[in-house]
Amino acid sequence: MSRPSTSELRVALVGTGFMGRAHSHAWRTAGAFFDLPRRPRLQVVAGRDAGRTRDLADRFGWHEAQTDWRAVVERDDVDVVDICTPGDTHEPIALAALAAGKHVLCEKPLANSVPEAERMAAAARDARTRGVLAMCGFSYRRTPALALARQLVAEGFTGEIRHVRAQYLQDWLSDPDAPLTWRLDATRAGSGTLGDIAAHSVDTAQWLTGSRITDVSAVLRTFVTDRPVGGEHVGLGGRGDGGERGPVTVDDAAAFTASFDGGALGVFEATRLATGRRNANRIEIDGELGSIAFDYERSNELEVYDARDDARTQGFRRVQVTEPVHPYMAAWWPAGHGIGYEHGFTHQVVDLVQAIADGTDPSPTFDDALDVQRVLHAVAVSAADRSARTPVARPDVARPTNEEVGA
Amino acid sequence: MSRPSTSELRVALVGTGFMGRAHSHAWRTAGAFFDLPRRPRLQVVAGRDAGRTRDLADRFGWHEAQTDWRAVVERDDVDVVDICTPGDTHEPIALAALAAGKHVLCEKPLANSVPEAERMAAAARDARTRGVLAMCGFSYRRTPALALARQLVAEGFTGEIRHVRAQYLQDWLSDPDAPLTWRLDATRAGSGTLGDIAAHSVDTAQWLTGSRITDVSAVLRTFVTDRPVGGEHVGLGGRGDGGERGPVTVDDAAAFTASFDGGALGVFEATRLATGRRNANRIEIDGELGSIAFDYERSNELEVYDARDDARTQGFRRVQVTEPVHPYMAAWWPAGHGIGYEHGFTHQVVDLVQAIADGTDPSPTFDDALDVQRVLHAVAVSAADRSARTPVARPDVARPTNEEVGA
Amino acid sequence: MSRPSTSELRVALVGTGFMGRAHSHAWRTAGAFFDLPRRPRLQVVAGRDAGRTRDLADRFGWHEAQTDWRAVVERDDVDVVDICTPGDTHEPIALAALAAGKHVLCEKPLANSVPEAERMAAAARDARTRGVLAMCGFSYRRTPALALARQLVAEGFTGEIRHVRAQYLQDWLSDPDAPLTWRLDATRAGSGTLGDIAAHSVDTAQWLTGSRITDVSAVLRTFVTDRPVGGEHVGLGGRGDGGERGPVTVDDAAAFTASFDGGALGVFEATRLATGRRNANRIEIDGELGSIAFDYERSNELEVYDARDDARTQGFRRVQVTEPVHPYMAAWWPAGHGIGYEHGFTHQVVDLVQAIADGTDPSPTFDDALDVQRVLHAVAVSAADRSARTPVARPDVARPTNEEVGA
Amino acid sequence: MSRPSTSELRVALVGTGFMGRAHSHAWRTAGAFFDLPRRPRLQVVAGRDAGRTRDLADRFGWHEAQTDWRAVVERDDVDVVDICTPGDTHEPIALAALAAGKHVLCEKPLANSVPEAERMAAAARDARTRGVLAMCGFSYRRTPALALARQLVAEGFTGEIRHVRAQYLQDWLSDPDAPLTWRLDATRAGSGTLGDIAAHSVDTAQWLTGSRITDVSAVLRTFVTDRPVGGEHVGLGGRGDGGERGPVTVDDAAAFTASFDGGALGVFEATRLATGRRNANRIEIDGELGSIAFDYERSNELEVYDARDDARTQGFRRVQVTEPVHPYMAAWWPAGHGIGYEHGFTHQVVDLVQAIADGTDPSPTFDDALDVQRVLHAVAVSAADRSARTPVARPDVARPTNEEVGA
Repeated sequence: MSRPSTSELRVALVGTGFMGRAHSHAWRTAGAFFDLPRRPRLQVVAGRDAGRTRDLADRFGWHEAQTDWRAVVERDDVDVVDICTPGDTHEPIALAALAAGKHVLCEKPLANSVPEAERMAAAARDARTRGVLAMCGFSYRRTPALALARQLVAEGFTGEIRHVRAQYLQDWLSDPDAPLTWRLDATRAGSGTLGDIAAHSVDTAQWLTGSRITDVSAVLRTFVTDRPVGGEHVGLGGRGDGGERGPVTVDDAAAFTASFDGGALGVFEATRLATGRRNANRIEIDGELGSIAFDYERSNELEVYDARDDARTQGFRRVQVTEPVHPYMAAWWPAGHGIGYEHGFTHQVVDLVQAIADGTDPSPTFDDALDVQRVLHAVAVSAADRSARTPVARPDVARPTNEEVGA
Repeated sequence: MSRPSTSELRVALVGTGFMGRAHSHAWRTAGAFFDLPRRPRLQVVAGRDAGRTRDLADRFGWHEAQTDWRAVVERDDVDVVDICTPGDTHEPIALAALAAGKHVLCEKPLANSVPEAERMAAAARDARTRGVLAMCGFSYRRTPALALARQLVAEGFTGEIRHVRAQYLQDWLSDPDAPLTWRLDATRAGSGTLGDIAAHSVDTAQWLTGSRITDVSAVLRTFVTDRPVGGEHVGLGGRGDGGERGPVTVDDAAAFTASFDGGALGVFEATRLATGRRNANRIEIDGELGSIAFDYERSNELEVYDARDDARTQGFRRVQVTEPVHPYMAAWWPAGHGIGYEHGFTHQVVDLVQAIADGTDPSPTFDDALDVQRVLHAVAVSAADRSARTPVARPDVARPTNEEVGA
Repeated sequence: MSRPSTSELRVALVGTGFMGRAHSHAWRTAGAFFDLPRRPRLQVVAGRDAGRTRDLADRFGWHEAQTDWRAVVERDDVDVVDICTPGDTHEPIALAALAAGKHVLCEKPLANSVPEAERMAAAARDARTRGVLAMCGFSYRRTPALALARQLVAEGFTGEIRHVRAQYLQDWLSDPDAPLTWRLDATRAGSGTLGDIAAHSVDTAQWLTGSRITDVSAVLRTFVTDRPVGGEHVGLGGRGDGGERGPVTVDDAAAFTASFDGGALGVFEATRLATGRRNANRIEIDGELGSIAFDYERSNELEVYDARDDARTQGFRRVQVTEPVHPYMAAWWPAGHGIGYEHGFTHQVVDLVQAIADGTDPSPTFDDALDVQRVLHAVAVSAADRSARTPVARPDVARPTNEEVGA
Repeated sequence: MSRPSTSELRVALVGTGFMGRAHSHAWRTAGAFFDLPRRPRLQVVAGRDAGRTRDLADRFGWHEAQTDWRAVVERDDVDVVDICTPGDTHEPIALAALAAGKHVLCEKPLANSVPEAERMAAAARDARTRGVLAMCGFSYRRTPALALARQLVAEGFTGEIRHVRAQYLQDWLSDPDAPLTWRLDATRAGSGTLGDIAAHSVDTAQWLTGSRITDVSAVLRTFVTDRPVGGEHVGLGGRGDGGERGPVTVDDAAAFTASFDGGALGVFEATRLATGRRNANRIEIDGELGSIAFDYERSNELEVYDARDDARTQGFRRVQVTEPVHPYMAAWWPAGHGIGYEHGFTHQVVDLVQAIADGTDPSPTFDDALDVQRVLHAVAVSAADRSARTPVARPDVARPTNEEVGA
C-alpha cells in the first residue's frame, strides 16, 4: 500500500490558509491540463485547526486530514511535502521533510531570517546528493508573461540591461483601521513588505535579468504604527472593530536602489499603502536593444519594445501572452481568453513534477531563495544604517541557477 | 448505488472538445471554492471518440466514459445532462434528456436554427412544469465584470440607455491559409460568426440592458471563400497544409444596427478576421447618467463613467473587478490577483446548482436563448434583403427573464 | 500697395467663431515652425459682429476687420479666402471668391446639401483651369498619427483591408438640458452628427483606405427632441436656463454599415450623446497583414499591429507619433512632448501654401469633399427608407485624389 | 518711443535654441487666447549666432535681433528679460537684468551649482523690494493635468500623503553612438539627468505635495562613458558619425529615495537611457484618501483614485483635463481636443504677466528654484558618499511659496 504505482506522486500539504487553497487547487488541476510524467495524489493535508483542515480536504479531495505536521512529513506514503505555513515554521518542517527523504516545495519567503534560510539551503544541498529536491514557491516565475520575458532576456532581446525598475504596490493597509493580522507581527511574519512582496520583486529581478544584486541602499517606513486588534478580515484587508489597538511591528513600505553584477541600476519599491493599487507587481527592464514592462494587474499581458523596429512604428507592443507559442499556454484556452492567479501555482506543480521525474534542479532552488533572503537582509541593514550602500553578503557564493521555466 | 446522497448532483457530460474540457473543470472545481447546496459528482462523460473520451475522463475524474450519448442521458444515476457538442446535435440530446427528466445545461448557441430552438424551448417549458430545469451556456454572463455591469444597470447607474456598441473581434481566420474546420461548415455550425460570437454579443446586450432588440438592419460578409482542407490546428487557428482547398460556407463577419425596445440604438459587429484582436469581446453602454465599457481582452476590468462625479475629476474608472464585494469574487483570491476564462464556467455551474436546489429558473433559460436565435435569424434575413430593417419575429412573446446573476 | 512681395500670400478670413480662431492661429503660426514657400499675411478678417471681429483681429494680428464678406472676397490685395462660417453660407462665399480668382480654403462639411456641394465642386474644377485652387478643411488628415496611418496603408503595411470601424463619439448633448444652439437647427447646420462629425469619419475612412464607399445601410436617431432656448454655452456644451424649450431638428446620432470598393466592410457610428466620450474620433482598420487603430482622445498615438512580427511578441504597438521621422513632426518638439488640436490646422495651412506654390491640387479637393457629401446623402436616404442598402450616387464619377499629405 | 503704452510689456529674449523657440511662441500666442492685463511686445532677441538669431526673429516676429546679450538686458525699452541659454550663463545674465530693474524669467535649472543659485536668489529677493520680479521656468507646473493635481492635493483630495513616486524616463541616449552634445559636458550643463530632468521631478514633487524633501539617499550612474564627437543631431538624439569619441562627463541616470517633511516617502529615478520611453515624466502620489498618477507621454490626462467612491466602482479615473473647468483650458478648444507641449510655456507667460500686473510673486520664485538646486546638491553629495542619507542643507530656510497656479 505504501508503494505508489510508477505514475503516482504522493503529496502532503502543510498549511490550510490562502496558500493552502492555492496549492491544493494546483496539485489537483495540473494533471488535467498538462501531460505529467507522474500523477499527483493528494495524500494528506495537515493543519492546526482540525475543522478547517477537514474542510479543505473535503473541498479539494485530500485523502486524509491531520493536525500534526510531524506525523505527516515522515510518512512512508508521502513523496513530496508542500509547506504553506507562515515563515516562522518553514525551517523545522523543511528540515524534517528533507531528513525523511521527501522532496520539498516551500512557500516564499524561504524563512524569516538569513540563518534559518542558510540552514535550509544547506539541508537542501545535502539532500540533493541523495536525489531529494527542494524548491521555493516564487510562483510569479510561472506567470506566462514573465516566463516569456525571461525567455526574451535570455535570448538577448533587450541587449545589455541598464535599468531594472520594480514596484510591488498594494493598498490593503491604506486604511489606518485595517485590522492587525499575523502579517503585521514581526515574530510571525519576520518582516512586512520586505518578506511578503519585496521578496517577489527581488527574485523576479534577479531571475529575469540573470544577474545578481551586489549592493543596496535602502529605507523602510511604517506609516501606521498601531491597528485594531480583531475586526473583520476580508481578503487581505478588512475593517477593525473600533476597539483595542496593538502595535504594528513590521514595515509598511520599503524602497531601495541596487546595483546588479551585470551593471544595471535597480530601483525597488514595495508598499501595502499605495491607495488604489490592488496588486501592482510591476517590473520594467530597459536594455540597449529593447525594453520590457509588466504589471500583474494586467497579468496576461507583457509590454515589449524593440529598438530595432522600423523608426516610424516603434512603440511598446501590448502582447497578449495567451497563445500556444507562449510558455505554459498551449495547455489552456484559445488566444485572448486569459488565465488567472492560481495558474501560476499549477505551473509550479507542473515544473516541480517534471524536475522530480527528470532528477534536475527545480527553479528556484533553496539556494536561489536564500540569495533573495540575503538581499533582503542587506536592505534591512542599510535601512538601519542611514541608507549606507551595503553589500549583499554571500559567504558561500552560491550561484543562482536561473533555470529557464516554461519552455 | 443509483441513489445519490442528498448532497450529490450526478452529472453526465456529452462532448469532449474545447468546451468539454472547460465544463469538466467547472464541475470539479465549483465545490472547492463555493459552498454549494449539492455536490456535483462527475458521473459519466460521452464522446464519439473512445480514446479521447477516456482521456478526458482520466484527466478530470469522470467516473465513466461512454461513446453513446443516448445510453447516457437516460440513466438513472444521472441528474444533469451537460451538452457540449456542435450545434447540430443540441436538439436531439436536449429533447431526450428533458424527456428523461434530467436537468439540462446546453452550450450556446442553443441550436443552428430557430425551429430547432423553438422545439427545445417548448420542451424546456414543458419540463419546467415537472420541476426540470434547462439553462443555456452563455457563460460570459458569469464574467464578474459583466455581472457587475448588469448590477449597475439594473440599479439605474446609467439612467436611460441611448447607445449599445458591441463588437466581438477575433483574428484566427485572418490568415487565408488557416484550415477549414467544422466551424466553417454550415451544415455543422449553422453559421459562422453569427452563432459563434455574435450570439454572445446579442445575449450580453439584451441581458445587460434588460431590454430586447426589436429590429435589425444587417450585412454578412465572407472574405476568404475557400481554405485548406487538413493542416495543423493550433488553438482555434493554425495553418493549412498547402494542399487541397474546400469552400467556406459560413460568414466571416457580420455587422448590424439594431433598435432596442427601451429606445437604445445598437451597433453590432462580429468578425474572425480582425487582425491583432485575439478575443476582443467588447461592449459599451452609454446612458444619460453614466456609461460602461468592457473588453474581454482585459476581462478582470470594467470601465465605468459616472456623469454625477465632480466636473473636474470625471473620467472612466478602471475598476478591477477582483474584490470580495464583486460578483463571485469573494470565493477567489485577494484583490488585484485576477481570474481567467474557465472561471465563467465554474460560476455557471455554481448558479445552475443553486437554481436546481432552489427550484428557480436558471439564467439564461432556453427561452432567453431562443430569443437570441430569433435576433440572429432577423440578422440573416435582413442581410439577404439588402439590409432592409427587419423586425425580430417573436410569435409567442416569450419574455426574457434577465435574472440577475452573481449577486 | 496691392502688389505682394513675391513671398507673401495675403489671406482673408470669413468667420469669427471657434473655427475662425483655430484658422487665425494656424495662419500666423505656420511660418514660425515650417519653411513656407510663401509667407502668409493676415490681411483681413470678416464677421457679422463688428466687435467680435475687431477683437479677433487684435488678438491674432489681422491687419483689418470687416463686417461684409462680399467686400472682402473680391479685394485686389487678397490671394486666399478662408471660409469658417456655418455650412449654409459656404456656397455663396466660395463661388464669389473663386469667381474673383481667389484660392479658397473652406471648412467642412463642404455644404449642407449635395446640390450646393456639386455647384461648389464644379466652380472649383472650373477655377482650377485658371490656376486657382480650392481645398476643404478636413483637418484631421493633418493629425500626424493619421497621416502616418495613411502612409502605412499606402505602402501596403495592412495588406488587403477587410474591416473599417469608425466611431465619432462625443457627449456634449448627453444632458437633455444642454442648450439649443445653431448646430441643432437643420436650417443652419444642415444636419446634426452627420455633417458635423460623421463627415470626418467618412473622409478619414476613404482617404486612409484609398477606396470609396459604394453603398450604405443607415439609421438616424434623435434622442432628445427639444432643448432649452438660451442658457449658458460652455465649450460645445453648457446648461440651458430652465426656461422655454425649442425643437431639435437634426439627428443626435447616426449609424451605418458600408461597403468599400476595395472589398472592405465598414461600420460607422457618430453621436453626441456618448456619455463620457469627449472627442473619441476613433478609427480601426484591419487588413490581412496588419491593423491600425486610432482614437483622437489620445491624438499623439497610433496603434499598429504587424502580423509579420515574431509570433511570441506580436501585439499592438503604441507608437508615439512625435518623432522627427513622423509626418509634420520634425518642425516641432523633441520626441514624446506632444502637440495639440490646433496643430492640424497649422499643418493644413502648410500644405495649402505648398500646393499654391507648386500649382498642385491640395488634399482634399472640393471633389473629395463632394464625395463625402454624397455618402452622407446616401446615409440620409437609407435611414429614411427602412435602412435599405443604398448606393452612393456619383453621376460624374469624380475620383478622389487621395493625395498623400505630411510626407 | 521708449515709453510703452500702458498695456505693453516689452520682452527681451536671450537664447535661440529649442527653448528660445518655445518661449518665442509663448510670448506671441498668450494674448491671442488669454485676456492679459498687459500685452507682450516681442522687442528684441539676442543670440551668439547672428544668422540663427535673425531667423528666429523673422519667424516669430521679434522686432530686433542682437548678438550681445549685455546690450540688450539694460535697454530702456525692455521690461522683461527671458533667459533661455545653457545653465552656465544664467547667473550673469540674470544678475545684470535684475540690477537693471528688469523682470526676469529664467529657464530651469536655475543654475549649475548651489552657490550660483544662491547669488541669483539673493539678487531676486533684493530686486523684489524694488518691485522687480523673478520667475524660474519649471513649465510643467503649467501642464493643466498637473495644475489640476495641485488643486486636488491642496483641497485635501488625497489626504495625508504616504508615497511620492517620480520617474523621468527618456531614451535619446540609449544608443551608445548618440552624439556628444553640450548637454553631456559638465562644464556647460553642470550635470546630466540631474539638472536636466530630475530637476523637474523634484520641483513637481515639492510643489504638488506642498512639502519639502528633507533628506536623500542617492546613486548616479554613467552607462556610456564616451560618445562620438560630431554627427547628426535629430531632436534631442541623433547618430554620431562613427569617428572620434569624447568623454561623457555627466550622469546618464540618477536614482534616490527621499523623505518629505510631511512624512511621505519619495522614490525618484531619472534617466535618458530608458529605451522606448520618449518623455515619460511620471509622478504618482498615494495618500490616505486618494491617489493621483500622471505621465507626460499622455499629458492631457490625469489619473485619480478616490478611496471614498463606492466600493464596487472604485478605480483610477482617466480624467481628460481638457474641459473649461480645468486650469487654463477655458481659453482653448472644446473638451477632448487636447493641447501640446508648447502650451505650458504659453501658460507660464500668462501667469508671469498677471503676476507683474498684480505685483505678486510668480510661481516658482528663484527661492523655489534654489530649493530644487539644494535637493539636487544633496543627491550628488549622497551619491559620492556611498548613498549615505544626506540632509538637504537650507541655511537660510527660504520657504517655497507653492503658490497655486492655473486657478
